[in-house]
Amino acid sequence: MATATAEATSAALNPTPSTGSAGKPTLHHLNNSQSQRILWLLEELGIEYNVVNHKRKRGRAPAELSKVHQLGKSPTLVTSTGRVVVESTAVASYLIETYDTTGKFATRDPLRDEELTSFAGSSLGNVTAIELLVDLLATVPPWPISWFLGTVRSQVQKTFTTAEFEKAMRFLESELGDQEWFNGENLGRSDIIISWPLDCIAGRKWVNFDKDYPKLAAWRKRVTERDAWKRGLEKGNGYDLSGVDQD
Amino acid sequence: MATATAEATSAALNPTPSTGSAGKPTLHHLNNSQSQRILWLLEELGIEYNVVNHKRKRGRAPAELSKVHQLGKSPTLVTSTGRVVVESTAVASYLIETYDTTGKFATRDPLRDEELTSFAGSSLGNVTAIELLVDLLATVPPWPISWFLGTVRSQVQKTFTTAEFEKAMRFLESELGDQEWFNGENLGRSDIIISWPLDCIAGRKWVNFDKDYPKLAAWRKRVTERDAWKRGLEKGNGYDLSGVDQD
Repeated sequence: MATATAEATSAALNPTPSTGSAGKPTLHHLNNSQSQRILWLLEELGIEYNVVNHKRKRGRAPAELSKVHQLGKSPTLVTSTGRVVVESTAVASYLIETYDTTGKFATRDPLRDEELTSFAGSSLGNVTAIELLVDLLATVPPWPISWFLGTVRSQVQKTFTTAEFEKAMRFLESELGDQEWFNGENLGRSDIIISWPLDCIAGRKWVNFDKDYPKLAAWRKRVTERDAWKRGLEKGNGYDLSGVDQD
Repeated sequence: MATATAEATSAALNPTPSTGSAGKPTLHHLNNSQSQRILWLLEELGIEYNVVNHKRKRGRAPAELSKVHQLGKSPTLVTSTGRVVVESTAVASYLIETYDTTGKFATRDPLRDEELTSFAGSSLGNVTAIELLVDLLATVPPWPISWFLGTVRSQVQKTFTTAEFEKAMRFLESELGDQEWFNGENLGRSDIIISWPLDCIAGRKWVNFDKDYPKLAAWRKRVTERDAWKRGLEKGNGYDLSGVDQD
């Protein structure tokens, strides 16, 4: 499996059969980002792939990612035939459909899979985006401003995000129930997609999983104990979500 | 097609065959919300359905929606067999799969449909959530606070949301290209889902579609000129996105 930094692989930015990458998809990855779940998925699928590790600049995705796709975001997957795919959900669907030949990620209930996947990206994603913003604002110097914006954060939490997070976590806890995975007996696309917002929430300490959501805490432990998860971390270039620079 | 207010239809909150709603799905709708696109879809499909119109209280979804589903959000669809489905994307997928017997919403490229649908809900949804928050904050009285929070809004726009909206609109404009619909020659799930963030953005005047994105402007005009769109508006209970109370 080829791992490369962005600087060393300008060829990979425009992969063609002549680059030697033919036959393998290429993931454009970004540190501390939702793309980590795609590395996890790639490792679970056990396929050959290339990864180009991009690095945040001042917390944001670097400009070089815009050469791969105009949205300039990560994950961006370049398929083995050169098609450029954006959006974690679409990338996960593509990879599972194309490479899961043994039904490892098969789901008994595609509608539920879609509800959970959409919930993680849209509903929970929106609340997370707001909480990240007010967290970030509360760090703006000098002190009187950061103090005032800290009170703004408290108000936003009190009137909106705290209750929304509680509702969302209660929902996910009940959806998981006594199953090992959100998808049931075996991992599914929904598990892959849900990992990012939960990592983000845990990294920022917005929720105390161990204390309040033991089933979600146990699920998170099961994820991080998987060999594929660990290999995914090794293939990437850092996954520290305690800062405010993820997107 | 039955239309009812939430107050008058407590039976519909727990639909069973004995309610007389059997054989029809029931949409729990909310004014000024993303649920409007599901009313549009239901009208495009031309099927029989029930709609329960819920009304925002102080800008938020009313508590009664939590009786239908613990997330208390809209759209929530109760299928003809009593299954409760949340998340616009999942509801749209279910409705198309179940009721589009003529292939009206068929797509030639399911992966592109998934990219666009996910983009509208996740990536664009997150930026929209942030912009809505800073818009809302800038209205907090008294004046010195609203003035200061107005400068916060300007900074957030300058450093993040304005560029993100531009990038997103350029992407959607190029994805639409010279096609009539995002899905190509015929409407698709992606068109249904994209309508909400664009309506939201237009309603708040964050983007000038006529001036800067003529293809998106023409697409929006095509949507609102459709009979099914107009019927959907009549079935709902208001769709004014110029305020800050949508979610």
